[in-house]
Amino acid sequence: MRFEVIKKGSHRKERAAILTLPRGPVETPVFMPVGTLGMVKTLTPHEVKDLGYHLILSNTYHLYLRPGLDVLKAFGGLHNLNRWDRNILTDSGGYQVFSLSKLTKILKEGVLLRSHIDGSKHLFTPQKVLEIQGIIGSEIMMPIDVCTAPKVTVEEAISAHDHTLQWAGESKVYFEEHLGQTGSTLFAITQGNFYFDVRKMSIESLVEMNFKGYAIGGVSVGEEKTLTREIIDFSTDYLPEEKPRYLMGVGKPSDLIRGVEMGIDMFDSVYPTRVARNATVFTRNGSLILRNQSNQLSSMPIEEACSCYTCKTFSRAYLRHLFKTGELLGLKLATLHNLHFIKVLMDDIRKAILEDRYGSFVKEMAPLLD
Amino acid sequence: MRFEVIKKGSHRKERAAILTLPRGPVETPVFMPVGTLGMVKTLTPHEVKDLGYHLILSNTYHLYLRPGLDVLKAFGGLHNLNRWDRNILTDSGGYQVFSLSKLTKILKEGVLLRSHIDGSKHLFTPQKVLEIQGIIGSEIMMPIDVCTAPKVTVEEAISAHDHTLQWAGESKVYFEEHLGQTGSTLFAITQGNFYFDVRKMSIESLVEMNFKGYAIGGVSVGEEKTLTREIIDFSTDYLPEEKPRYLMGVGKPSDLIRGVEMGIDMFDSVYPTRVARNATVFTRNGSLILRNQSNQLSSMPIEEACSCYTCKTFSRAYLRHLFKTGELLGLKLATLHNLHFIKVLMDDIRKAILEDRYGSFVKEMAPLLD
Repeated sequence: MRFEVIKKGSHRKERAAILTLPRGPVETPVFMPVGTLGMVKTLTPHEVKDLGYHLILSNTYHLYLRPGLDVLKAFGGLHNLNRWDRNILTDSGGYQVFSLSKLTKILKEGVLLRSHIDGSKHLFTPQKVLEIQGIIGSEIMMPIDVCTAPKVTVEEAISAHDHTLQWAGESKVYFEEHLGQTGSTLFAITQGNFYFDVRKMSIESLVEMNFKGYAIGGVSVGEEKTLTREIIDFSTDYLPEEKPRYLMGVGKPSDLIRGVEMGIDMFDSVYPTRVARNATVFTRNGSLILRNQSNQLSSMPIEEACSCYTCKTFSRAYLRHLFKTGELLGLKLATLHNLHFIKVLMDDIRKAILEDRYGSFVKEMAPLLD
Repeated sequence: MRFEVIKKGSHRKERAAILTLPRGPVETPVFMPVGTLGMVKTLTPHEVKDLGYHLILSNTYHLYLRPGLDVLKAFGGLHNLNRWDRNILTDSGGYQVFSLSKLTKILKEGVLLRSHIDGSKHLFTPQKVLEIQGIIGSEIMMPIDVCTAPKVTVEEAISAHDHTLQWAGESKVYFEEHLGQTGSTLFAITQGNFYFDVRKMSIESLVEMNFKGYAIGGVSVGEEKTLTREIIDFSTDYLPEEKPRYLMGVGKPSDLIRGVEMGIDMFDSVYPTRVARNATVFTRNGSLILRNQSNQLSSMPIEEACSCYTCKTFSRAYLRHLFKTGELLGLKLATLHNLHFIKVLMDDIRKAILEDRYGSFVKEMAPLLD
């Protein structure tokens, strides 16, 4: 992996870079669509490619449970199974442990969890989680971490941080020994809940350990938005300039624009695709709810200026009909539009940085901001 | 509409023809995929076009309820709404009255039904049903008929036949007065339950009225398969040679092959698409259930020789994973395959007729027959 910052803007901390991965270069700032079970829901790999994405995220925890390691091993990794020939970043399961798992116990050696599907028990150690990602064959891997809810005590935040740090070290050792020759890259995840001191401690310790890239974990978990932004802005002040910074679980248009302003290079979130399947689609003037009565007779596309297949082909009235009648085509058409919208937004963000006019770009994007 | 028989085979009653409709010619024997609510479930109109289909069926009853006449009128018909620029045949709602409607009353003037969605009451007269189809703007329209269940008494079969015949006459009058200049075509539906005498009476009376095409209705409604075939074979003996014969609601590979043998030109059924969404896919050796454990590690496509997107791209193992995890992509990929399979089968059927080797073709298709 190479990471080359091409341009630093003069507005705030925004920057444009090229992240070179084994399956091709990725221009940053970049949004990664989420393919929870291997591919972005409702889309084919070719559709995701045609949208212009070069890097998607897939979930280690979910793939470990289904299709499971036997299948992934038999196929020599996820790329041969889902037929996506571009880059994949896999998370570590830390967030799913936090959000999905029925029973989770944080042990010294890892996380003991129960499957959200059948209740079966699994021990996710730093080594196990990387072994799984090695079998998946992702281009960027994440170490297991401990994510905490807003308003835990400082002691709990420190304890989670301590585990995360300890496991990051163990992950690095395992990665270098077993996966160092694969061409894949290991990032670190900074934690610390919403305590600035703990965040700082986490970042400094992990930077000391010299990872190739750094994620900000544990935000966008139900806390106040102003607090999220303060934590991000604080974190990027301490993260090394020459390495990619990845804000995990963030994908609202406003948060992408603001995140870039604070020096973030990479984002992922189910938000654009999840809301699409709930009939909410993005426009440069804000979101549109396709189910609304006001669209019943509308011959307009979602957005006049949009060049996606959905907008070039279908009216709001037809999309509303598809959602009102539960037709699956609606889910796919809304997903296509939202991912196209986000890709164009990220392209515009990058262009504005390269032309050093990010401040005025943010002002132009006022209808998208909160 | 023009219907030109190109070739009559010497095996039994099989024939190849060209059905010329306002939106382009259709080669027969033809299978029409069903777009209940406007388009084939899970597919875009462009995907259906790429599969090679020139004629789809859509349901008058369903479109009348949703999106409703206001929307269809505002758009000037279904083609402008669903963006399918090839031909559409609409049924009359007679079958949905039979199968879906909660409360149905056959009156002298038409069918009084309650919506399966909200229980609202609607009177489907011959005129109303054609008015709706005129608003939909389909290229082939069907008159309202009375479909009966297997094993009704001969009196009930005759009563249903009488209504069907009376309404066919009223439909013809309404069609010629109001829709005669649109370029659309009105077919008739023969009924008569499983009483050969009543079937014969229905066919002879309707042929006397000189419709442009004839459907065989009221089969494939739960009766014994041998009886279905006897009724079809009997019916085509009485239907005029120079007009298209349409077997309603039939779409299993075996029934297509056998139907053509008995002189059928047109078929429609939700079968190939419905079973696809239930993980059952067709091969020339019979059906395959993608959920089966035996596919867990299979790197084979559904069918080696198949040139559909699904088979060219994905393994059985991945398709199984998609179905086991409820990923919507699986439904679409299986639908694509099954409709491709049926299209290729119909092309092969036509080629065999043109080369006058339908008898040996049927023998080659033995693994598909029942």
